[in-house]
Amino acid sequence: MKISIKELEKFIKKALLRKYDEKETDLITKVVMFGELSGKTSHGIVRLEGILAEKPKGKPKLISKTKVSSIIVGNGNPGMLIGSLAMDEIIRLAEENSVGFVGARGTFSSSGSLSYYLEKIAKANLIAIIMAQSPESTPPLGGIQPLFGTNPIAFGFPSKNNPFIFDMGTSAISYGALLKAKALGQNIPKDSAIDKDGNMTTDPNKAIDGATLPFVNSYKGAGLAMIVEILAGLWPNAWFTIHNKTAGWGNIFIAMSPTLLMDEHEFKEKLSLMIETVRNSKTKDGNKVRISGEKTIITRDKNLKRGYVEIEEVLINKLRKFIN
Amino acid sequence: MKISIKELEKFIKKALLRKYDEKETDLITKVVMFGELSGKTSHGIVRLEGILAEKPKGKPKLISKTKVSSIIVGNGNPGMLIGSLAMDEIIRLAEENSVGFVGARGTFSSSGSLSYYLEKIAKANLIAIIMAQSPESTPPLGGIQPLFGTNPIAFGFPSKNNPFIFDMGTSAISYGALLKAKALGQNIPKDSAIDKDGNMTTDPNKAIDGATLPFVNSYKGAGLAMIVEILAGLWPNAWFTIHNKTAGWGNIFIAMSPTLLMDEHEFKEKLSLMIETVRNSKTKDGNKVRISGEKTIITRDKNLKRGYVEIEEVLINKLRKFIN
Repeated sequence: MKISIKELEKFIKKALLRKYDEKETDLITKVVMFGELSGKTSHGIVRLEGILAEKPKGKPKLISKTKVSSIIVGNGNPGMLIGSLAMDEIIRLAEENSVGFVGARGTFSSSGSLSYYLEKIAKANLIAIIMAQSPESTPPLGGIQPLFGTNPIAFGFPSKNNPFIFDMGTSAISYGALLKAKALGQNIPKDSAIDKDGNMTTDPNKAIDGATLPFVNSYKGAGLAMIVEILAGLWPNAWFTIHNKTAGWGNIFIAMSPTLLMDEHEFKEKLSLMIETVRNSKTKDGNKVRISGEKTIITRDKNLKRGYVEIEEVLINKLRKFIN
Repeated sequence: MKISIKELEKFIKKALLRKYDEKETDLITKVVMFGELSGKTSHGIVRLEGILAEKPKGKPKLISKTKVSSIIVGNGNPGMLIGSLAMDEIIRLAEENSVGFVGARGTFSSSGSLSYYLEKIAKANLIAIIMAQSPESTPPLGGIQPLFGTNPIAFGFPSKNNPFIFDMGTSAISYGALLKAKALGQNIPKDSAIDKDGNMTTDPNKAIDGATLPFVNSYKGAGLAMIVEILAGLWPNAWFTIHNKTAGWGNIFIAMSPTLLMDEHEFKEKLSLMIETVRNSKTKDGNKVRISGEKTIITRDKNLKRGYVEIEEVLINKLRKFIN
């Protein structure tokens, strides 16, 4: 069904306000709306039920570590709230010092689409790297025991036009895609998961009891998964592999001013030149080359302009119980 | 033939001293020796001929940009010399400020094995990320025009024992492997390169006229290649895609103290715990899991202990001309 963006926003806020204060509600709503509007609907209102089921032990706590680094302790608050606080803090640190590091721990849910944070940080004229650790679902290369999360790594850069954003999971399939295939009774792609005995499977049920494989089951995918587990999990003193689970999931936000090495205006001009060079480079069929991250922003802007989104009625009805 | 490590070192230094001063010779020799000793022989003495053929326009120049960042202008000196200077500078910056950024440009040859630099930086108790941009050989996903280098990205971390090092190319095959296959009259692996018309090829000659593909020909490999092109090429004002070629190849060195977010001792203890957890995790065949980067360091240490390496006589003879 069609639902206007304003109405959807009101709906989400009304649900969240039962549990979170106005500022928190506002921050979480923005992340949920970005997922829904940008077509990354697995990070949209489908997450609302989980967010409302969380049991925070208190308010999030910001710990200043050094002039350029802070830790945010989530205290069981939603990943999307902690992600938003980390984003604000990293912009503050990097605007003051040209560089900033924010480690987060103590969440037990997804921080949402990392593209949301990267766009905002890049619009503050900062280069950013974000990594998100999550509970172990992927084994190392050659192993069959889940040790690493699906562990995305994402980069954002300011340019003359839209920020350039690249966001990738280090596992062959996301946990959300597994759950969706299970719910729909579908198979998952070949070579993306193993069962509990380490045999390849396309059955999502067997994969859930087994493990998702690292990206293309190679040392590159597995190595990057471990890098994210170290930087986003171990380093902020969060959950890593089978250790320190009570500390909750971890995130790392790193931001750098282009001015560390180059004039800001020059950086943005040159990046736009690079993007257009890539877009217009030679292809076999004469089509333009797709630029990573653009579809997300274009979809969001298109939906914002027309003022409404399409959402399955069953999902809306399911969520209505939270506001009635 | 067997050659003692001391003799090989003398041999390399004697050749280099004809062109470079003592300090430069010493720095380059260490990188060449690391390649040869660690089994990464494509970064070993096979590079000496190229290094001696370079035409520096002057000494390398260090430009201090901010308290935490510097640029090194190579002036056509060997990549291995500039890499060594960047390594020393990044350790200095990060030891003083907990964080450092060094951009390099103006080289026209490989910086050698990035693991060499990462081990030294990690032994200074710093986390490091190094990326190296090189001339365009890889197209973006969906394209057939080479725009990105083979663009490795590598990470190093201090631990209680050996540093943990992970080093990956973002292209499906390295340019060195292409040249080697050509020289030996061998085919290259399937799906790793295209000819100049964009058709898949296993013929290295056709691949050299065409392009190496991004890692597994996916948006992940291509995206990471572009990230390296931005951070290691564009940002230090070096060559990027088809632009700014006279500025030479680029590199970016980033170093961070673990103390930004965690006590240094705790970081090293926990990383060692993680490594052992990975090594001893469940496998299908009961074997231990291989830890990335370990083979490089173990091979180097084994060769150092026995005091000699095996080198093809033809290679030694070829190089003899440089000292006679």
